Amino acid sequence: MNTPLKIARLDINQVDFNHHLDGLLAWEGVSDKAVNERVEEIISAVRARGDAAVVEYTARFDGLEVASMADLTLDRARLEQALDRITAEQRQALEVAAERVRLYHEHQRQDSWRYTEADGTVLGQQVTPLDRVGLYVPGGKASYPSSVLMNAIPAKVAGVPEVVMVVPTPRGEINELVLAAACLAGVDRVFTVGGAQAVAALAYGTDSIPGVDKIVGPGNIYVATAKRAVFGKVGIDMIAGPSEILVICDGQTDPDWIAMDLFSQAEHDEDAQSILLSPDADFLDAVEASLNKLLGSLERSDMVRISLESRGALIKVDSLEQACELSNRIAPEHLELSVADPDAMLLQIRHAGAIFMGRFTPEALGDYCAGPNHVLPTSGTARFSSPLGVYDFQKRSSVIFCSPEGASELAKTASVLARGESLTAHARSAEYRIK
Amino acid sequence: MNTPLKIARLDINQVDFNHHLDGLLAWEGVSDKAVNERVEEIISAVRARGDAAVVEYTARFDGLEVASMADLTLDRARLEQALDRITAEQRQALEVAAERVRLYHEHQRQDSWRYTEADGTVLGQQVTPLDRVGLYVPGGKASYPSSVLMNAIPAKVAGVPEVVMVVPTPRGEINELVLAAACLAGVDRVFTVGGAQAVAALAYGTDSIPGVDKIVGPGNIYVATAKRAVFGKVGIDMIAGPSEILVICDGQTDPDWIAMDLFSQAEHDEDAQSILLSPDADFLDAVEASLNKLLGSLERSDMVRISLESRGALIKVDSLEQACELSNRIAPEHLELSVADPDAMLLQIRHAGAIFMGRFTPEALGDYCAGPNHVLPTSGTARFSSPLGVYDFQKRSSVIFCSPEGASELAKTASVLARGESLTAHARSAEYRIK
Repeated sequence: MNTPLKIARLDINQVDFNHHLDGLLAWEGVSDKAVNERVEEIISAVRARGDAAVVEYTARFDGLEVASMADLTLDRARLEQALDRITAEQRQALEVAAERVRLYHEHQRQDSWRYTEADGTVLGQQVTPLDRVGLYVPGGKASYPSSVLMNAIPAKVAGVPEVVMVVPTPRGEINELVLAAACLAGVDRVFTVGGAQAVAALAYGTDSIPGVDKIVGPGNIYVATAKRAVFGKVGIDMIAGPSEILVICDGQTDPDWIAMDLFSQAEHDEDAQSILLSPDADFLDAVEASLNKLLGSLERSDMVRISLESRGALIKVDSLEQACELSNRIAPEHLELSVADPDAMLLQIRHAGAIFMGRFTPEALGDYCAGPNHVLPTSGTARFSSPLGVYDFQKRSSVIFCSPEGASELAKTASVLARGESLTAHARSAEYRIK
Repeated sequence: MNTPLKIARLDINQVDFNHHLDGLLAWEGVSDKAVNERVEEIISAVRARGDAAVVEYTARFDGLEVASMADLTLDRARLEQALDRITAEQRQALEVAAERVRLYHEHQRQDSWRYTEADGTVLGQQVTPLDRVGLYVPGGKASYPSSVLMNAIPAKVAGVPEVVMVVPTPRGEINELVLAAACLAGVDRVFTVGGAQAVAALAYGTDSIPGVDKIVGPGNIYVATAKRAVFGKVGIDMIAGPSEILVICDGQTDPDWIAMDLFSQAEHDEDAQSILLSPDADFLDAVEASLNKLLGSLERSDMVRISLESRGALIKVDSLEQACELSNRIAPEHLELSVADPDAMLLQIRHAGAIFMGRFTPEALGDYCAGPNHVLPTSGTARFSSPLGVYDFQKRSSVIFCSPEGASELAKTASVLARGESLTAHARSAEYRIK
């Protein structure tokens, strides 16, 4: 009864390869006009009526009839309770993960710096944390405790004094693992609201929900659209596309392992993308056999099949070097170098969200507990963006302190350039400081 | 004939102060529907017809009839020619500025890092420059050579191999200072095109204009709208609002100096904002007198008057400490601490794009040649964003290289967490690596 998996088999030397590849990679986030309009409406209502609007939308969209925002607020004590409600095994796993994520991110913290020039002029940058950050956590099935750790811990390592989390609880359904993760990550306050109304409340503030400086975390199309709409009023992280993995294998890793690594990406959703590159055609056959052998044993086999048949591919390349070139063209979110000497390949990799090196580093370890962040640039945006990190929760102010001597010299240069731009008040402001 | 300047005088203790302040600061970038539609149309045309569309729009909008893109392309030799055409004084000023900007930004370059755990697992980040960056430079009067230096030099310091500049030349009018600055900043290629068509060409590439990974630089509403539209396909810098300065003075700086510092901001455009805070009411009177005395002598006095009367203010505070608190609430783009001991105030400043310290550091020095970048977060966005810097032209890839021992341990934790999220292919992928 097992229908063979129809996954694309490509060869980089086939004449229409580029055409096929472009088709595979094509993905554009569609901004639906109807969604935009509903989101704008929700944002306006929350700006105008604050808590009352949030309570109404929560009743309507989450089926949660409450009297006021007080019923949608969880304090630290409730988060600590969640830690007691999960299993000891789960608690330990969360603690291990949280601690490793914290240790890794401490390497990313940036400090203020300054230097003094010969004439006494001081230049530098003052680095400070954001005051308050909002973390969106999806409700229901997409409510991932690991995502809470990955978003909240870098903010806390940056020194953000207040991290506010919002998570919808449709029909009152609370995910204790998510609350336990929030507790371990140091989240300060939780509101059980979601959707565009939660984003609007975080951006503009209500009587109960404090306005934040930046909103991070994944969400559905309404949440993503609302984040785009409030961008500028507050900072946001990237709007993520579907998740992707590119595996480069020299043909010497157990094909079952590689098959499961590809499955682990494909089980996220139907648009997820799993691609394998290898110079070894026999190995590609072996992995295809493993995929067919193991597919039926997966809990999410239907979704995995759709994902692999519509967006997956097994691609024959001539060499590992050529695989690196192709990877740079794709700029994958996750790149697995399942080869004997991954360090030798590393410097050839210019664009990737995260690089998983060697046969013993499947993406799943990075997703949960290796330490690096699992919030990564998707859809080729690794060409110009980075994993979520402590640097996303710090900002810089330039510092300039001219000595009278320094100012006098600089003012001469500034005066010439300002007059060249016809900005004469600039020129005169500088000239006042010439001795 | 001099009409007295009607600039707002406020006292932080007046009952309606917050209301007045909110009114002063209110500014929301309006995205005009008609502009959006025209920009979408231009982007579609450039995506569909490439160079031909760019040439047509350039003829239509810039009044420049050319046969092909070849006529809209300037090579390095043409940029070097510009260096010979400007005055020796201008050339020297540009060289001094470029060198100082380069030296300062070299302090911002970030390096790859990694650490090895006891079991041999390696974690870190690989830092790499973007491949190709596009720099938008406005044409006509807003064409500023200093802006070319400030945008291109950080990219080059980051190691970006190719910086492509676009600058419209309406009716063929070329700004030699801009080309000279491009030459000194190391710009690789220049196309004399502008508007949404230039942004679209940089984002999607045409036969002549190479697609880039990030687009930076200021522009009019069409350019800003186009940048917003292509965000995601490429990276962009912030969309800037009107420029602002907040001056905090202890009352001991020459009031003429402070008046000219306020003018230098107000001469940018009618929406620019200049605010002075001082605990010394007599000093505020003196500055108001200086403003009135000097206003008539300004080349742009009409614009300055509109800006100061609509968005400027002289505000009496109780203390310098209170001034810092108010400054944090405003999160100004430019903050001038014209006081005896600015270093004592610095740690109280949490949010500001750039901090100009002491009586000898007017904003104008930072705008041109002190070294720090003049592309700064506006409209309160300094709460969550930073000056343009080398870090905007570098990106990071997480690096994870598990030893077999490390993988075996991590896999146990990952397995528990993955199963807690019902992602069983993730769990099984991890479990394969357990010894």
